[in-house]
Amino acid sequence: MTQTTETRVVAEHVEAVAASAGRDGHEAHEAAVILAQARSTVDPELRTAVEALPGSIRRVALYHFGWEHADGTPAAGNAGKAVRPALVLAAARALGGRPEQAVRAAAAVELTHNFTLLHDDVMDRDATRRHRATAWTVFGDADAILAGDALQAQAQRLLAEDRHPAAASAAARLAACVVELCAGQSTDVALERRDPAEVTLEETLAMAEAKTGALLGCACALGGLYAGAAPEEVEALDAFGRAAGLAFQLIDDVIGIWGDPARTGKPAGADLAVRKKSLPVVAGLASGGPYAADLAALYGPPGPRKESEAELEAIALAVERAGGRDWAQTEAADQMARAVHQLSRAVPDPEAAGGLLSLAEFVTRRGY
Amino acid sequence: MTQTTETRVVAEHVEAVAASAGRDGHEAHEAAVILAQARSTVDPELRTAVEALPGSIRRVALYHFGWEHADGTPAAGNAGKAVRPALVLAAARALGGRPEQAVRAAAAVELTHNFTLLHDDVMDRDATRRHRATAWTVFGDADAILAGDALQAQAQRLLAEDRHPAAASAAARLAACVVELCAGQSTDVALERRDPAEVTLEETLAMAEAKTGALLGCACALGGLYAGAAPEEVEALDAFGRAAGLAFQLIDDVIGIWGDPARTGKPAGADLAVRKKSLPVVAGLASGGPYAADLAALYGPPGPRKESEAELEAIALAVERAGGRDWAQTEAADQMARAVHQLSRAVPDPEAAGGLLSLAEFVTRRGY
Repeated sequence: MTQTTETRVVAEHVEAVAASAGRDGHEAHEAAVILAQARSTVDPELRTAVEALPGSIRRVALYHFGWEHADGTPAAGNAGKAVRPALVLAAARALGGRPEQAVRAAAAVELTHNFTLLHDDVMDRDATRRHRATAWTVFGDADAILAGDALQAQAQRLLAEDRHPAAASAAARLAACVVELCAGQSTDVALERRDPAEVTLEETLAMAEAKTGALLGCACALGGLYAGAAPEEVEALDAFGRAAGLAFQLIDDVIGIWGDPARTGKPAGADLAVRKKSLPVVAGLASGGPYAADLAALYGPPGPRKESEAELEAIALAVERAGGRDWAQTEAADQMARAVHQLSRAVPDPEAAGGLLSLAEFVTRRGY
Repeated sequence: MTQTTETRVVAEHVEAVAASAGRDGHEAHEAAVILAQARSTVDPELRTAVEALPGSIRRVALYHFGWEHADGTPAAGNAGKAVRPALVLAAARALGGRPEQAVRAAAAVELTHNFTLLHDDVMDRDATRRHRATAWTVFGDADAILAGDALQAQAQRLLAEDRHPAAASAAARLAACVVELCAGQSTDVALERRDPAEVTLEETLAMAEAKTGALLGCACALGGLYAGAAPEEVEALDAFGRAAGLAFQLIDDVIGIWGDPARTGKPAGADLAVRKKSLPVVAGLASGGPYAADLAALYGPPGPRKESEAELEAIALAVERAGGRDWAQTEAADQMARAVHQLSRAVPDPEAAGGLLSLAEFVTRRGY
């Protein structure tokens, strides 16, 4: 891709994201601009790391990032909204650092995120991601696993080769985060196999924090480390990202049940049809009382079903009656309040904190 | 395990390895002692890294290393012969470094090796390793993949948290090696699916170097880095380990066809029964002439067969007649000569090079 083409694609991406933000106004637009800038800043580093992979692994990774079609011909790129790299860069800027020094760290976080996506799709047998066939469905399990392994290695290599004084502590923190992500995915797989009655809200929340919150927290923490932030500032940034990640997951789970199919790109009630133990469902089941019992009777044992739209609507209503929807929305608001509080500890100046806050509000309002 | 028990277990291990060395005499005994010392030096670091893993991932890893049975009860440990950690420590010593400073690097290499074993077993559907059921057969694919992912992360974390001045370059080198290991495994999976007539000896050798040679080379290079060796010494150490690794693979492939089942622990002709494209087979097929055509007719398309011992013996004879056995043994000797030459470049003093040479001869004489 030439520089001119790349600039055009990025500009179109900015417009598309800003347009999708629509009625949410100025802050959403600000977040869209930050995301598009992060994408164009980090993509060259990211692409170099992927292009450096050998043989078939390179091809799988280029496909996964949307830079190639399944047949190996070039594609425009569709590597997600760059939320995590944007958090790294925004955190570095908020703490008075120079974001351009944290580009490798931002790319390392994005490589790590994509390594986990490749592996999670194999384990969960998910057939589509970002509106395309997942890598394992195109290239087989082995090459999807190996491409994920290689992306994890490339992420660590970027940091190990970075001369920035924070690189080693960033690498250690990212590696510790990977262990937490793996634990979260392991718990998720285990929870999905268990009877809904045996799953507690506490363990589902802990799973969501490990699986979703940990890497958002790590992204913010790495930005802080690269800005030379004090340890307590780095921890507050991590806590901010974790809380925002949990708020995002709660909203994403609400959208997965009650979201508009035209907006989510998934059929209505898709999460219910596969009996996903999402946070509103587990909260409803754990609420006690007759409505919880009704929901438990409807939900039954794990595994996908073939049900009519009306049946799925009845289950959605049962989750709502059992209080699952209200709980999730209140909990999401609480987590966002917690995120804002942690952000004010790390970055007392509201103007400096603006970028991170916009990103947090963006991801929790519409999922990503 | 108490220190006393551990010392006893290590001593027994030394005796067992030395006894199995038998007629190969003094050098094999020296290698057995070096390996047992490496095992007892590296195990505490290794075990701490594994014990630090959370939840079910910890359990899978403890099982894989032989420290726990499938039911979670303690086991004596059966984590292989520690060839790679021993190479790290021996290389550090040979280059005038202090091996005790390279213990984390040695543990990182062993964690990396075990991450690849966990993933390879999933991809290859191998049901046994080190005489035990593989992790995926006991805990399922997901937890075996996740435990491997977490071990890769822990390997990089050990190096990122190491204050030694060589830690960052060691981490970068290990990450680059992981990419090569993944490429080797990807090629191996692809080659096993192709028609034998379409597989060249050159690509099979390149695959074996990436899959087996790369990490042995990396282990030696890391030892050199930790000893503060010059870049050309580090490269010579890497080349030494690669050549020794390739010699090992050639001999291992010969044993996989003509080895004594009582000694290998596998039924006679096991590699032939699954139509493995091992180096002697590919060399035989590529040799040209009537014997190659006979072998091609007998070998047929990929996939396992149910054949009598006599039929497998006929195939083994066909590989031998086509020159596959002689080629592999000559090539192994050439690779060992290359290894010795590279070692003399890195470590001109024969006495200082003794430990590394013993290890190379040990692994190429009897597999590991």
